[in-house]
Amino acid sequence: MKLLRHGAAGAERPGLLAADGTVRDLSGVVADIDAAFIADPARLDALKAVDPLSLPVVEGEVRLAPPFTGIGKIVGVGLNYHDHARECGLPIPEEPILFMKATTSLCGPFDAIRLPEGSEKTDWEVELGVVIGTTARKVSEADALGHVFGYCIAHDVSERAHQLEHGGQWTKGKSHDTFCPIGPWLVTADEVGDPQALDLWCAVDGEMRQNSSTGDMIFKVAEIVSYVSRFMTLEPGDLIITGTPAGVGLGLKPQVYLARGQEVRLGIARLGEQRQSVV
Amino acid sequence: MKLLRHGAAGAERPGLLAADGTVRDLSGVVADIDAAFIADPARLDALKAVDPLSLPVVEGEVRLAPPFTGIGKIVGVGLNYHDHARECGLPIPEEPILFMKATTSLCGPFDAIRLPEGSEKTDWEVELGVVIGTTARKVSEADALGHVFGYCIAHDVSERAHQLEHGGQWTKGKSHDTFCPIGPWLVTADEVGDPQALDLWCAVDGEMRQNSSTGDMIFKVAEIVSYVSRFMTLEPGDLIITGTPAGVGLGLKPQVYLARGQEVRLGIARLGEQRQSVV
Repeated sequence: MKLLRHGAAGAERPGLLAADGTVRDLSGVVADIDAAFIADPARLDALKAVDPLSLPVVEGEVRLAPPFTGIGKIVGVGLNYHDHARECGLPIPEEPILFMKATTSLCGPFDAIRLPEGSEKTDWEVELGVVIGTTARKVSEADALGHVFGYCIAHDVSERAHQLEHGGQWTKGKSHDTFCPIGPWLVTADEVGDPQALDLWCAVDGEMRQNSSTGDMIFKVAEIVSYVSRFMTLEPGDLIITGTPAGVGLGLKPQVYLARGQEVRLGIARLGEQRQSVV
Repeated sequence: MKLLRHGAAGAERPGLLAADGTVRDLSGVVADIDAAFIADPARLDALKAVDPLSLPVVEGEVRLAPPFTGIGKIVGVGLNYHDHARECGLPIPEEPILFMKATTSLCGPFDAIRLPEGSEKTDWEVELGVVIGTTARKVSEADALGHVFGYCIAHDVSERAHQLEHGGQWTKGKSHDTFCPIGPWLVTADEVGDPQALDLWCAVDGEMRQNSSTGDMIFKVAEIVSYVSRFMTLEPGDLIITGTPAGVGLGLKPQVYLARGQEVRLGIARLGEQRQSVV
């Protein structure tokens, strides 16, 4: 199932993408696509009993919001693709590198990316987003995927000067408002299948910059969920973003970054596409 | 006003500390001490109109919970005391070092600290916690304290091996469950006065380990709030923990860490005391 939320910021309503490509409103069926919904399998079962084509079509220009809300934390994995580690000239990490991104950075998949004042090094990063479905604390790799509710595209927008040149930790470059577009859909795990067999790409102004597969991940989704759960409790609605493949601006020679007026498009197989203008 | 929450985990109720030292229940006056309460000055005004001594006394053994809930993010400042930077043998940072701590690490001020399995380097860190009252985005230093609702003690418990020896960022050592006791009270800013004139201390098994003043901070509270708000939007109920003074286990020669069965006590002038057993 492809769950989503539609409507203006602050007035979003739940919905889904029907097989005929239309956005259908779910307000009459569920209160919202939020942590409470994700945590309760009975609500998803109730939804599955409804014929999507019987739901009201959302007409006209539809703003898609983050496809779920109530996200308690965003945990990022750094340097998690072989080709990206190579382009950065860095060794393959022995353990996953974890960082956190402020939840205030979240926005919809087609909302504009707002460059921070004076920013000269804002970079793109297409990533597979993993959405936790059930509380995970010290779970094994074998059990880890059972704690995953579904997947979405996550754009881990990063200001490299703030991330790397202002002392210490990466948080500063990862947490600006609009630096985490997610969606368009939250796709349930059953529709995605193997999370390590998904092509993903990112293009800037029509020029393909990233083009890889989740098969190139150094630490696989099951390993990541298990590993993170050793250091913190994962709760329903938590989001793990699993690292980006080669082709980011930081890795180009010379480096290239986003400029006002540009358009970024990115996609992952089975999870749809995003498009953002840079303002 | 000294706001608090009391009751078993998952069944907390709002309350306050009255002038006679008793805990009084606020369930009849406000729904909870949460982000919605903090964001709405009218609710605090309504509370001020009530005579605390007219409220019901909470009798018997009272568990104090985190004194407010709905915390969207915890932003930490690293190496922010002159004496702590010296003991670590590190230069004074030119800009605040920021990191994030998972909100799942929060617990009450007298709850036990649970050592992670196999942990050998779990350390204490008494810190001044700053609670945001109104949305802050790119605010000036002059305006920054106007965005502060109040203050609390925060214990930034840190597993040094996880923080420093497992690759990359500090998040792993900072985010374990029970690694962020806060409280006992959320003290409104008017009762605290100058946040740079507060003595703070921490003792392990009765031995004083940290004993300093917030006057030794490298970056003051107003600078920190202003600085953080350049990189992310701060929202009502967000918590900033402002760094720890010298005397942590990492800084001792030889290094000393917490062991099962020990007791940690910590306090900050005007903000009360915490006490945790290590299990």
